[in-house]
Amino acid sequence: MNDPIGVFDSGVGGLTVAREIMRQLPGESLIYFGDTARVPYGSKSRKTVCKYSRQIANFLLTKQVKAIVIACNTASALAREELEELVDVPVIDVVRPGARMAAETTKNKRIGILGTESTIKSGIYEEYLHQIDPEITVVSKACPLFVPLVEEGLIEDRVTEDIVGRYLHDMKEYEIDSLVLGCTHYPLLRGVIGREMGESVRLVNPAYETAKSLKEMLREKNLFAAPGNRASHRYFVSDGVEKFISFANAVLPCHVSETTVVDIESY
Amino acid sequence: MNDPIGVFDSGVGGLTVAREIMRQLPGESLIYFGDTARVPYGSKSRKTVCKYSRQIANFLLTKQVKAIVIACNTASALAREELEELVDVPVIDVVRPGARMAAETTKNKRIGILGTESTIKSGIYEEYLHQIDPEITVVSKACPLFVPLVEEGLIEDRVTEDIVGRYLHDMKEYEIDSLVLGCTHYPLLRGVIGREMGESVRLVNPAYETAKSLKEMLREKNLFAAPGNRASHRYFVSDGVEKFISFANAVLPCHVSETTVVDIESY
Repeated sequence: MNDPIGVFDSGVGGLTVAREIMRQLPGESLIYFGDTARVPYGSKSRKTVCKYSRQIANFLLTKQVKAIVIACNTASALAREELEELVDVPVIDVVRPGARMAAETTKNKRIGILGTESTIKSGIYEEYLHQIDPEITVVSKACPLFVPLVEEGLIEDRVTEDIVGRYLHDMKEYEIDSLVLGCTHYPLLRGVIGREMGESVRLVNPAYETAKSLKEMLREKNLFAAPGNRASHRYFVSDGVEKFISFANAVLPCHVSETTVVDIESY
Repeated sequence: MNDPIGVFDSGVGGLTVAREIMRQLPGESLIYFGDTARVPYGSKSRKTVCKYSRQIANFLLTKQVKAIVIACNTASALAREELEELVDVPVIDVVRPGARMAAETTKNKRIGILGTESTIKSGIYEEYLHQIDPEITVVSKACPLFVPLVEEGLIEDRVTEDIVGRYLHDMKEYEIDSLVLGCTHYPLLRGVIGREMGESVRLVNPAYETAKSLKEMLREKNLFAAPGNRASHRYFVSDGVEKFISFANAVLPCHVSETTVVDIESY
């Protein structure tokens, strides 16, 4: 069926997930929503993130989406269960695919998780990983400065290296061998993080795994777009169209010329 | 009249303004609202910041406030005029008092302004300063990393010193002699900023000037609370009560034990 797939994030970060979906599922149309008026979610409570996610899901349903991808780790951590109850289309989150890949990758059963304050506080990665294998040791760390550093463009910078070194200190102590980049902005720092951790540590980017999970789900439920479907993507935000468009054009393989502002509080 | 004064900010930063009001006007009761569910405002558009400010003003009016203090530089920069049209009580902002003090302080007529992206982009400080004296040179700089650094507790830290050095580079080139700390978090970095700029530069903290302006306005309009009035303060937020209470108790001279969550989108 050629209905679009809804993808949402607190802001622009989820575009890295949208990009992976476009790569792995080039025949599928996307409806992307970025909640740029209320970004970030990573420091906010479960109640608030659930409310915002519900409003967005309601909006996406008005666009006849056949599935919803929560392309935000914080919303995945705090609101997935509630969204699954609310909507009658399949919901894919970014946390479970990332956790699964980390569990498959680790050899010494020591996994590190980097994420926002709310994602880490939720304990969701530990929960999934211990469901897969109770013997896995999980070392998690909230990295609140990573998003502002990335947004300020300090990707390869001595300040970023300094901060990365501090946040990863415990990960190195525990000798983890698999590290989940549990926020959509973090893969942009994979160079610095990789150098700090060394070659023996595998970095897991949930965006890639999420697109794979989505593909599996579409196959299982027979929801693929018809062969030869011409995919078309649409973009919606709650604030700041220009900034969104310039980020989108830096990230996505296709050109974005139009974005619509949505009064998301009314959904 | 003993009605309270409404004070609002995008989050906790405005508590530094509330503190100054409590110090300078100990007989006045305050209703504080922190929009912790939608913080920060500094990267958002005029339209969105105006909408949020309107909702908050509507909420404050339900508490019979006799005046509204916009204790947020971004909301002051983007939404003051609109709020003045909307409400029929006096509105005090943090930008005009800070600009006035900088203009009084400068000797070489070169003033620096530090603020959020949206405050700096609005050009509001330039506008006020040039109304006072068209010959003043204004050097302004958005400092998006200051708030995250303060919130991560990196007040006296080599990383903060490094970032401060970069943001203040232009200010030093232009040899300003007066520097407005145009965001409520920035006075917490006054140590580092002061060392970087040197003793010849006067740092202006708008919180102090705002409380002074409020006092003048209450006197002019005969709105002071009755002598001997026992001030009582109440706190409202849109998210995250515990975090707010712990910050409030670190900042305010009085003990905060209770905070109420408000569904601000419905105002």
